[in-house]
Amino acid sequence: MVPDVAPQTANPNTGSSETERDNRPMMKALVYTGPNKLEVLDRPMPVIQSPTDAILKMLHSTICGTDLHILKGDVPAIPYDRVLGHEGVGTVVSVGPAIDGLSVGDNVVIAAITACKVCASCRKGLEAHCITGGWQLGNKVDGTQAEYVRIPHATSSLYKIPEGLDLRACAAISDALPTGLECGTISAHVQPGSTVAIIGAGPVGLAVMLTARLYTPSQIVMIDLDDTRLEHAKRLGADHAVNPGKLDAMETLNTFTEGQGFDCVIEAVGIPKTFEMCQKLVAPGGSIANVGVHGHPVNLDLHKLWDRNISIKMQLLNAVSIPTLLRLYQSGHIKPSNLFTHHYPFSEVHKAYHSFQMAAQEGALKVAIDF
Amino acid sequence: MVPDVAPQTANPNTGSSETERDNRPMMKALVYTGPNKLEVLDRPMPVIQSPTDAILKMLHSTICGTDLHILKGDVPAIPYDRVLGHEGVGTVVSVGPAIDGLSVGDNVVIAAITACKVCASCRKGLEAHCITGGWQLGNKVDGTQAEYVRIPHATSSLYKIPEGLDLRACAAISDALPTGLECGTISAHVQPGSTVAIIGAGPVGLAVMLTARLYTPSQIVMIDLDDTRLEHAKRLGADHAVNPGKLDAMETLNTFTEGQGFDCVIEAVGIPKTFEMCQKLVAPGGSIANVGVHGHPVNLDLHKLWDRNISIKMQLLNAVSIPTLLRLYQSGHIKPSNLFTHHYPFSEVHKAYHSFQMAAQEGALKVAIDF
Amino acid sequence: MVPDVAPQTANPNTGSSETERDNRPMMKALVYTGPNKLEVLDRPMPVIQSPTDAILKMLHSTICGTDLHILKGDVPAIPYDRVLGHEGVGTVVSVGPAIDGLSVGDNVVIAAITACKVCASCRKGLEAHCITGGWQLGNKVDGTQAEYVRIPHATSSLYKIPEGLDLRACAAISDALPTGLECGTISAHVQPGSTVAIIGAGPVGLAVMLTARLYTPSQIVMIDLDDTRLEHAKRLGADHAVNPGKLDAMETLNTFTEGQGFDCVIEAVGIPKTFEMCQKLVAPGGSIANVGVHGHPVNLDLHKLWDRNISIKMQLLNAVSIPTLLRLYQSGHIKPSNLFTHHYPFSEVHKAYHSFQMAAQEGALKVAIDF
Amino acid sequence: MVPDVAPQTANPNTGSSETERDNRPMMKALVYTGPNKLEVLDRPMPVIQSPTDAILKMLHSTICGTDLHILKGDVPAIPYDRVLGHEGVGTVVSVGPAIDGLSVGDNVVIAAITACKVCASCRKGLEAHCITGGWQLGNKVDGTQAEYVRIPHATSSLYKIPEGLDLRACAAISDALPTGLECGTISAHVQPGSTVAIIGAGPVGLAVMLTARLYTPSQIVMIDLDDTRLEHAKRLGADHAVNPGKLDAMETLNTFTEGQGFDCVIEAVGIPKTFEMCQKLVAPGGSIANVGVHGHPVNLDLHKLWDRNISIKMQLLNAVSIPTLLRLYQSGHIKPSNLFTHHYPFSEVHKAYHSFQMAAQEGALKVAIDF
Repeated sequence: MVPDVAPQTANPNTGSSETERDNRPMMKALVYTGPNKLEVLDRPMPVIQSPTDAILKMLHSTICGTDLHILKGDVPAIPYDRVLGHEGVGTVVSVGPAIDGLSVGDNVVIAAITACKVCASCRKGLEAHCITGGWQLGNKVDGTQAEYVRIPHATSSLYKIPEGLDLRACAAISDALPTGLECGTISAHVQPGSTVAIIGAGPVGLAVMLTARLYTPSQIVMIDLDDTRLEHAKRLGADHAVNPGKLDAMETLNTFTEGQGFDCVIEAVGIPKTFEMCQKLVAPGGSIANVGVHGHPVNLDLHKLWDRNISIKMQLLNAVSIPTLLRLYQSGHIKPSNLFTHHYPFSEVHKAYHSFQMAAQEGALKVAIDF
Repeated sequence: MVPDVAPQTANPNTGSSETERDNRPMMKALVYTGPNKLEVLDRPMPVIQSPTDAILKMLHSTICGTDLHILKGDVPAIPYDRVLGHEGVGTVVSVGPAIDGLSVGDNVVIAAITACKVCASCRKGLEAHCITGGWQLGNKVDGTQAEYVRIPHATSSLYKIPEGLDLRACAAISDALPTGLECGTISAHVQPGSTVAIIGAGPVGLAVMLTARLYTPSQIVMIDLDDTRLEHAKRLGADHAVNPGKLDAMETLNTFTEGQGFDCVIEAVGIPKTFEMCQKLVAPGGSIANVGVHGHPVNLDLHKLWDRNISIKMQLLNAVSIPTLLRLYQSGHIKPSNLFTHHYPFSEVHKAYHSFQMAAQEGALKVAIDF
Repeated sequence: MVPDVAPQTANPNTGSSETERDNRPMMKALVYTGPNKLEVLDRPMPVIQSPTDAILKMLHSTICGTDLHILKGDVPAIPYDRVLGHEGVGTVVSVGPAIDGLSVGDNVVIAAITACKVCASCRKGLEAHCITGGWQLGNKVDGTQAEYVRIPHATSSLYKIPEGLDLRACAAISDALPTGLECGTISAHVQPGSTVAIIGAGPVGLAVMLTARLYTPSQIVMIDLDDTRLEHAKRLGADHAVNPGKLDAMETLNTFTEGQGFDCVIEAVGIPKTFEMCQKLVAPGGSIANVGVHGHPVNLDLHKLWDRNISIKMQLLNAVSIPTLLRLYQSGHIKPSNLFTHHYPFSEVHKAYHSFQMAAQEGALKVAIDF
Repeated sequence: MVPDVAPQTANPNTGSSETERDNRPMMKALVYTGPNKLEVLDRPMPVIQSPTDAILKMLHSTICGTDLHILKGDVPAIPYDRVLGHEGVGTVVSVGPAIDGLSVGDNVVIAAITACKVCASCRKGLEAHCITGGWQLGNKVDGTQAEYVRIPHATSSLYKIPEGLDLRACAAISDALPTGLECGTISAHVQPGSTVAIIGAGPVGLAVMLTARLYTPSQIVMIDLDDTRLEHAKRLGADHAVNPGKLDAMETLNTFTEGQGFDCVIEAVGIPKTFEMCQKLVAPGGSIANVGVHGHPVNLDLHKLWDRNISIKMQLLNAVSIPTLLRLYQSGHIKPSNLFTHHYPFSEVHKAYHSFQMAAQEGALKVAIDF
């Protein structure tokens, strides 16, 4: 399928080089061609560029809130010919000579974070800051919203899917669920009996909730301005759902903990107002975990908080929890499909983006793109 | 010495009641009588008010930066007849009937934080937020800058001093050193080989430094605007001392870590500017520990930091490390006397305050008051 | 109800002194009067002996495996007039003058471990080894299988029961469930996705299982020679139940982990053979937690295990998890009543012991004694 | 220097294939040719066999106690033509095409443990159990006691040596010091103020001591039957040195902790008697770390220890602490050269083995072999 697997001289850091070859087989890809412009274009199929690469035929991709940021032009570093997407599931069609443990034909989850596992950052457990990795797909190199994708550091960035799992559902294990678990649940130190407040009931906030439940907190309160999302939250196991657009939200929230505050507060929106709300909700000795992507500085009420013995953690996922999440899916303890509300064939990818952009009106959580 | 040890009906939560009895023996005490007013007054000697109280005859007290805040009128909750001071060493002269393990004649370190050890907060390891304790001395009840002091929850708030230690030096184990260890070194996760930057080379910043060295970081950089304090820091073991009032401080600091940032950054000043400097110094995956007492909100550059995998910890000491610090003093691994530069008899307590207020000119670190 | 609450001169460490007063009101108590001899006798009602004591009127007690050991004469340090029992729920009828946060009329869970919270052991988080506490009830002082009981260090050894909980069920929170959580689940580092093997499906093994589930392991395998207990285990959520008395148990167990071994192995029987089985079941990098009470040394195959990166933890409960367990019961996340199969009025206490001794034939797990 | 770097078809798992080529340049190597037989032979120089290999020209090697075990015939799995040695420092002379961050000419420390960093074991932090790695050198593949060596998984198994360090001293960072730190100090939870007992004052026991000091315990006691080694221990910083061959060793040891036992006990010998001594020395709540290589099962006094809240950890090093140790050497906080007492040119390798075998008579700790 991929006739050309020999190492190429192409620079793996410039997407443009990937478009210059004209004698390669072509594929369809969703390309960001400028602010608010997404086009399905013919692009050369990717080839192995390094001994640690693999090429996947995509089965399912999904759209992340970050893709919408890119589309709005908020991420100026991204070139105008980038194939978007950093989530998804595919079938291995070609591997570089240094790949271990992956074979042509394997169905795999693609980690949103590419990691070499051997650089100084990875050795410190900071795969998110891998010197030659980190957030690569749909950012520094072409991404997963295309018929084929090249995955750098493939041995350590792809995870074989056990038999019997729903492949589309596994696309939530690329980014949403490990982000929820690593950046939300674990960063906020959720433990049996904890009281948990999660601000933001979108796909990532709900991923925090689903993974927080793995530790059996005594209560989970979901907070969002969108009642439809709050309905999803209650359906998926929230103990309480609060819309702070309504009167007395803080008062209501206070009653849940008898005024003690929450042990674990997770920000999954990404604006100053919600981060500031976290500071009002957290109990002495508690933890705030920031999951949201922020575009502005925020106010920290250190004059009120300096003696409250709280911690604030902010992180990009390392994607190290993917094997655990696959095992928990396999054993029936987590249901990634719960995060999906819509799915479209790749031929209708613009509709998929539309549904995700209009999430409130469409009642959308994760939107799948099927190849 | 204290003729009246029977339980009294006095309300332990109102300092005023302590002054109302007129037939009790009297003592000298330093009383905060209003903003910028400190007076040595005759006050009735304290008596046991609860079965868990002890009465100490003070041997050595010290002045904390917080005492200066009170004096300036920055802590309006403190009544105008409060005896100040939450640090010091004394001899037990009387104990309540529920006291275990303390006897008349014992020399003890007074924990700056009073803790019952049995309330819901203490059970969670939050002695700083003990429901009937926390910061009590020189705040909610009369403090240690007096000839005698009543210590609530004495069994769990006093620590016997092993034979052979310098009693005055032990006064640095009431607050400065456990704050340095708990709120600075441990909160910032200092480990063997870490790179450490400490902003503020006053007594607390130096206490962070002395306790950070217990974990053998690969380098400790002290940052302060006062060159005299930086000299103290170098004398006591700082690898580098940087005055950011001079040119190119950030550039200099960057060279120490080859531009990687510091693993552990500790704020020991308490103003927005220094907290913001911390955010520039911390490495991906690193930790900021706030030790300073803040009077204003600060700016948090969450738009730059959200994906840097850092943690921020802010806390008031729990004082649980006092037994460890006493053991390390006894074994010769830490020298609390290093923090003291001045000492005065209680009769010259106003001079002691003056030296501490004029710390830069006087070259003062901790100032002892001897009884 | 308890007319005499003034401090007595009785020695709190000698149960015998408690029987010497003759003008005190009397109560019924189950007394260990020698090997294999239990008698219901009239005994003076207990009185406050220390300012930190409380007296409870018992509502429900239970029998622990340790009580059976005592009865067999296996614990020679226990005197022949000891009232047995260290588990149960009661109503506060009297408190010493140093008690905080407990009032007459409160219904409370009695911690099996008495802790002062202020001695050097408690300060290190070793309540089990509290210098004046530890396992006191039904051992060093009279216990809970009586109409009334005196609780030393009551503030830190009793836990108020929230409204609405089943009081009898709460008796499983004295010992069985916190032992399961602290000594089994936490010591074995059960985490989301872990594979867990528990040897012993008696009340304590099942308490390990119920608390292990709080962390959502991917699989829990229960191992016992008694098929009735295995049935209980499956009913309460075990993924697999294996009787090693049947053929091929090790082979069956190996298939569950594809030969990798279990991440977490818990011994809840207390004989050499089961501890040795743990060593065969544990995966490289895994943990063995010993919960069983052992009477003999065991063989450790260090020549096979030295390079397997495993840890072995053995501990007596500290009972610090009781507040968490009460909160999880209140929020519906754990059902202590699941551990009870039988209950008898105190007048039939001999039948209760009989059922517990004949557990296999009777299908008995925890047996409650109601007052 | 290594003319043939193209991938070969040779099976990397069979050392024998490495000897079969006859047209390759030859080198000198120390070969285990049978029990008690070591011969310096001409062997073909190693070549790159996999894209992740590197070839080193050796600068310094050392002998490990394990090499002596092999020599005695205690490790029957090792073939009779194996080049021994898993420690040392070399210069990179050739790298496979998938190597990152290593260049020809780099001087590197060789990790005793080879790790791919991407298999299921490595992902769990069990490099010691790497599916295609672990203890490879001088065991499954030819080792470091030769002029050249092939290193599998070289990117993640070699560590560049910063400028200015003594290269021979760095050979102690292959195995002895990371074993001391990871398997001794960290496994035993050494913390500031801990009391530490280390049984065995050979190179590994001393490496535990040197790394334990990084955490500033309040006291370190070294225990050995060889007074010369105890002298080394005292010279390098032991607080006490005890020879249990002399009278009253246990009594002496007890006085050091006032009968409380040691917080951290490390076994660095590898025989049942010393492991059993650990059980007598450990305090309630303490930790035993096994570092010794054991050939026999041991007795565990579980009937005495089940309620003592202790942990036992046994592990083979993962070698993840090498970057930290290099940094601490560079900053002057640890001196690996302290472990070396003897050095020989490779031409006198038999003398080097003799000195190490006769360690007591020769006063030998680590013995270096220089190329």
